[in-house]
Amino acid sequence: MNFASDNTAGIDPDILAAIADANAGYARGYGNDDWTEAVERRLAELFEREVAVFLVPTGTAANALALAQVSPPWGVVFCHADSHIATDECGAPEFFGHGLKLVGLPGDGAKIAPDTLKTALAGYGGHSPHQMVPAALSITQASEAGTIYRTGEIAALAEIAHARSLAVHMDGARFANALVRLNASPAQMTWRSGVDVLSLGATKGGALAAEAVVVFEPARAAFMGERRKRAGHLLSKHRFIAAQFLAYLTEDRWLTLARRANAMADKLAEQLTATGLKPVWPVEANLIFVVLPRALDAKLKAAGATYYVRSSESLHVGTDNVLVRLVTSFATQESDIERFVGLCKKS
Amino acid sequence: MNFASDNTAGIDPDILAAIADANAGYARGYGNDDWTEAVERRLAELFEREVAVFLVPTGTAANALALAQVSPPWGVVFCHADSHIATDECGAPEFFGHGLKLVGLPGDGAKIAPDTLKTALAGYGGHSPHQMVPAALSITQASEAGTIYRTGEIAALAEIAHARSLAVHMDGARFANALVRLNASPAQMTWRSGVDVLSLGATKGGALAAEAVVVFEPARAAFMGERRKRAGHLLSKHRFIAAQFLAYLTEDRWLTLARRANAMADKLAEQLTATGLKPVWPVEANLIFVVLPRALDAKLKAAGATYYVRSSESLHVGTDNVLVRLVTSFATQESDIERFVGLCKKS
Amino acid sequence: MNFASDNTAGIDPDILAAIADANAGYARGYGNDDWTEAVERRLAELFEREVAVFLVPTGTAANALALAQVSPPWGVVFCHADSHIATDECGAPEFFGHGLKLVGLPGDGAKIAPDTLKTALAGYGGHSPHQMVPAALSITQASEAGTIYRTGEIAALAEIAHARSLAVHMDGARFANALVRLNASPAQMTWRSGVDVLSLGATKGGALAAEAVVVFEPARAAFMGERRKRAGHLLSKHRFIAAQFLAYLTEDRWLTLARRANAMADKLAEQLTATGLKPVWPVEANLIFVVLPRALDAKLKAAGATYYVRSSESLHVGTDNVLVRLVTSFATQESDIERFVGLCKKS
Amino acid sequence: MNFASDNTAGIDPDILAAIADANAGYARGYGNDDWTEAVERRLAELFEREVAVFLVPTGTAANALALAQVSPPWGVVFCHADSHIATDECGAPEFFGHGLKLVGLPGDGAKIAPDTLKTALAGYGGHSPHQMVPAALSITQASEAGTIYRTGEIAALAEIAHARSLAVHMDGARFANALVRLNASPAQMTWRSGVDVLSLGATKGGALAAEAVVVFEPARAAFMGERRKRAGHLLSKHRFIAAQFLAYLTEDRWLTLARRANAMADKLAEQLTATGLKPVWPVEANLIFVVLPRALDAKLKAAGATYYVRSSESLHVGTDNVLVRLVTSFATQESDIERFVGLCKKS
Repeated sequence: MNFASDNTAGIDPDILAAIADANAGYARGYGNDDWTEAVERRLAELFEREVAVFLVPTGTAANALALAQVSPPWGVVFCHADSHIATDECGAPEFFGHGLKLVGLPGDGAKIAPDTLKTALAGYGGHSPHQMVPAALSITQASEAGTIYRTGEIAALAEIAHARSLAVHMDGARFANALVRLNASPAQMTWRSGVDVLSLGATKGGALAAEAVVVFEPARAAFMGERRKRAGHLLSKHRFIAAQFLAYLTEDRWLTLARRANAMADKLAEQLTATGLKPVWPVEANLIFVVLPRALDAKLKAAGATYYVRSSESLHVGTDNVLVRLVTSFATQESDIERFVGLCKKS
Repeated sequence: MNFASDNTAGIDPDILAAIADANAGYARGYGNDDWTEAVERRLAELFEREVAVFLVPTGTAANALALAQVSPPWGVVFCHADSHIATDECGAPEFFGHGLKLVGLPGDGAKIAPDTLKTALAGYGGHSPHQMVPAALSITQASEAGTIYRTGEIAALAEIAHARSLAVHMDGARFANALVRLNASPAQMTWRSGVDVLSLGATKGGALAAEAVVVFEPARAAFMGERRKRAGHLLSKHRFIAAQFLAYLTEDRWLTLARRANAMADKLAEQLTATGLKPVWPVEANLIFVVLPRALDAKLKAAGATYYVRSSESLHVGTDNVLVRLVTSFATQESDIERFVGLCKKS
Repeated sequence: MNFASDNTAGIDPDILAAIADANAGYARGYGNDDWTEAVERRLAELFEREVAVFLVPTGTAANALALAQVSPPWGVVFCHADSHIATDECGAPEFFGHGLKLVGLPGDGAKIAPDTLKTALAGYGGHSPHQMVPAALSITQASEAGTIYRTGEIAALAEIAHARSLAVHMDGARFANALVRLNASPAQMTWRSGVDVLSLGATKGGALAAEAVVVFEPARAAFMGERRKRAGHLLSKHRFIAAQFLAYLTEDRWLTLARRANAMADKLAEQLTATGLKPVWPVEANLIFVVLPRALDAKLKAAGATYYVRSSESLHVGTDNVLVRLVTSFATQESDIERFVGLCKKS
Repeated sequence: MNFASDNTAGIDPDILAAIADANAGYARGYGNDDWTEAVERRLAELFEREVAVFLVPTGTAANALALAQVSPPWGVVFCHADSHIATDECGAPEFFGHGLKLVGLPGDGAKIAPDTLKTALAGYGGHSPHQMVPAALSITQASEAGTIYRTGEIAALAEIAHARSLAVHMDGARFANALVRLNASPAQMTWRSGVDVLSLGATKGGALAAEAVVVFEPARAAFMGERRKRAGHLLSKHRFIAAQFLAYLTEDRWLTLARRANAMADKLAEQLTATGLKPVWPVEANLIFVVLPRALDAKLKAAGATYYVRSSESLHVGTDNVLVRLVTSFATQESDIERFVGLCKKS
């Protein structure tokens, strides 16, 4: 009953096989290989435009490189107060961005509302050079609460951001999970709605370690190669990160894997709701947040269930309860869900 | 005839198998898994002491994290002028080290002589706070020229460094290649000779992407976890980087792989010497540097040989020649060596 | 009627005379002069202990150097949301601190309450290495709202901070204004109440450009000289910054100047209150915040009054009003106060 | 007999008087004052074009801000190995430039020859993204050896630099000393010869603490205000730094002061030469380098002469000698020169 994270799952067998397949003969290092070129072509195809692509091994690296690229050191990056970049990356954006500032905004379900962004921006301007300068908006899709921005919501936020010359970054660690739920195209969910740069994750979706920074306007990617290299994120045997991504994106594998993860979340949410444990936010991807009585929490853990207790900027549970996060993945088994819910029912 | 780099080879089959073996069930992320614990135990055993270990996906990351840990932002890191950190990492040490300064020293065969270090250090002191402060010495073992520091040489350099309170870092991207040639123990080649922190490479030796920062005095590793995380170098599915390392270090696999690479270099060097193309530096690891007439260079390339032309701080070839670097690896085939030498003979 | 800032005033005549007096003959540069030594002795005397002192030309430099000294790049510095370091220094703490993070806390009158700090700290811990690490508390004395921490309040905050190994920094841009109001000794208001490092301002008090970082435990000041130098904040003709400070601190000049500024604030506050414009926070130093109807604001400005409109994290005025900040200084004339209040009365 | 530095002199009386004159009434802070506007106008007039101007209190700040503005963090700044930015600023360019790299070039008399720059540049290119990227050339006028670049030499260097898209920075801590010797116009010695950004010093020339970053193409100065502020280099009582600069540049005061310093250097050089102590480099500004026997050095110091022993990248004196630097300034007295030379004669 492992619902701790989608990174506790292993590697999708097809992706693992692709690594093995790539292990034949020699290949030039540092991204000058055929697999890398194929990934770039595939991403251009998927996003229906020329894009600049930079593969890296972690999502933190992708986010921090992307933000440093679009914000000067004196820049402000607006994000949700519960966003991964603000709470879980130990200051990577500040490090890569040479001291840029994250400003965490409130918002239910870990989503930023357009008015919230507008209000925040209203506090900036007219106080140069004393005040840091708004530089970017970062949104997470699917969000840290498992909710999803609709393309209209993305476009509304991007319009506000662009009107103030902010770049729009999307942390897409769970991009596919959002995509399959929205039934939008990758282009619609990103640049057609105003996203300028995307952290596109494959690791949580089934890869070993493969993330991409996708810059939709290649001219904005100037010297990203140097930026990645000096961050130590250019892999020497680059074909193997590219091979993972290629397998992930081949045909509909990435969507299939995401649909499976989402379906498991739906099932878990449905059954928990039936036992009276209604998720606190809409279950739109592969994350479920529920409030558990402490006694049930203890019982589940004693039975071997693993998951994390979380706090939320916008939701406060009492002292007798805990807010827990349950994550499903492509590897989640229905039997685990049934056993977990069974334990909840008996409580 | 691929002699471009040891990173153009793929993954050693046993290491690839270990990745597949690790792909069973769930594992906690971020290094809280059994494989990671086993790697730490194995390294403690190999180095005959408690060590602090931080796995990362690239050698650049290992070097830069290690140097940032032992040097303040106003620190000077002495290294060879031809060292990888100085020439090939796009300023990663300066980035991770928040502006530290690399001072490149001369030295034949990419090795620093004790007197050279002494002379360099004599230029520092007595000019505080205007001058940057000597903080570390970084040596590469095996060196970028394929030469090897004897343990006595390491100890002599470390003694000079420690007398001025400098930390000693070893870039061990080809640690095993040096180790098997010296027939020294890992402990002797490092901390017993004064090395404080080691970048231990497995990638060039046969892994997919696996390097380690090894801190010999664990107290000096304080907050290295945060440092790695904020650099984006803590892998979420950490078991797979640990599994690579574990397979690499299991029994004598790492040494066997290194011996094979070195043996191929010996054979190539021997046969080139026989054709009159004597390597310019002692062939002590898996790198061979030879001066080729431009005509031969063209002919070899036309025949499909791949390798890099290099420049050296300490060696200047005429305009009719090129200095080329030939690298062997665990994957090098004898037939390629014979074909390459055959082409040289006929010239 | 200039109430814009205490930095719109010029130089106190005695301090200016001290600059002229110091302009005789030669003096060694970079702080190796008699004036600097005398300032250090004087500060040791005033603070009743050995201290390490670093003079710099701006308060932003003093704050940023102090915070960088006590926080690692992955450190969190807690401060009030309205504090100068958070709102007016364009990211200097983040720059000097190589990416450290300021976490702004709420609190009435720009003061942090002990419970607020406790609650904030409770959110940290147990999530290493993903979360940044609490490193310091920064409080402003007198605060940006013109209020003052009592020594007991400082001690209470420091106790909480020290229990979590946080350093305590005091931004003392208006240190003297607070000191004379509290009638405490400099030692009581700082290290005896738990302050570890102080930004001590003289500029607003009457100097041309003179601030000091005072480190109460000199061992914690290691390499501050290098830190200041590499920030470009070591003045070459250092005797002139030292001469300013020396004149400022000679006998009770600094206290006399502060008392005059405070007395003007008291008078202004008293008379405004009499007209029905009661300051929104206790007037404890030389800052007065009042809510003005927009019409009165326009009238005052038309009559030549200068002051700034401010926003506050903890106070929201309606759309028909503005929150304005009135600052007095050693140079404020009673006639200006009377004219200003006269205009308010007639409204 | 103080020849230690031009910063051991005090403030020129006229500049000091200008500070006192500016000390009347109130003035807006942070550069929004009349003096600042007047300095900007005066510099535009002197340089015969629109310029962007940023006043700062130290030369290190001016240099570091200028270089950070024209080089990315992965940039290489070429400079002379003996340049102040490389040897005396404790890594300020690396700090402000977020890890940029200074590459010190050789050159007699602390000047870089065009061919030296060409050779250095030839080592860059074709190795992206592994190698740092050439970004700027920094030359010092007058140089650290007291020599002067002719306008043709500046133009030749700038042409080479611009051909590779490098910006050209001039460290003009002793700009006036060079200018009056060359009898060139400020425009000729800078932007008309290809200089893009200038650190213009007034401190050594007679100010208390006043330096300027002058950006000749104002569009290249975008966000320099923020950069300066977050470095803590925006003075609050800005009128006083502007007043210094204004007095320095009024009529020909800056040139008169520089001519006096140079004339003292000429006299000292001439008389030393007559005693057989010929300066090792042409005396073209206010710096004289001579090789002294150790016995004479001891005798001079015993008699109260102050100066610094220097080492040079391009000149090595034997163990029985020292290379000493003698600096004259606007404040140097002929009597001191005569006494100094008298001591040399008797040796």
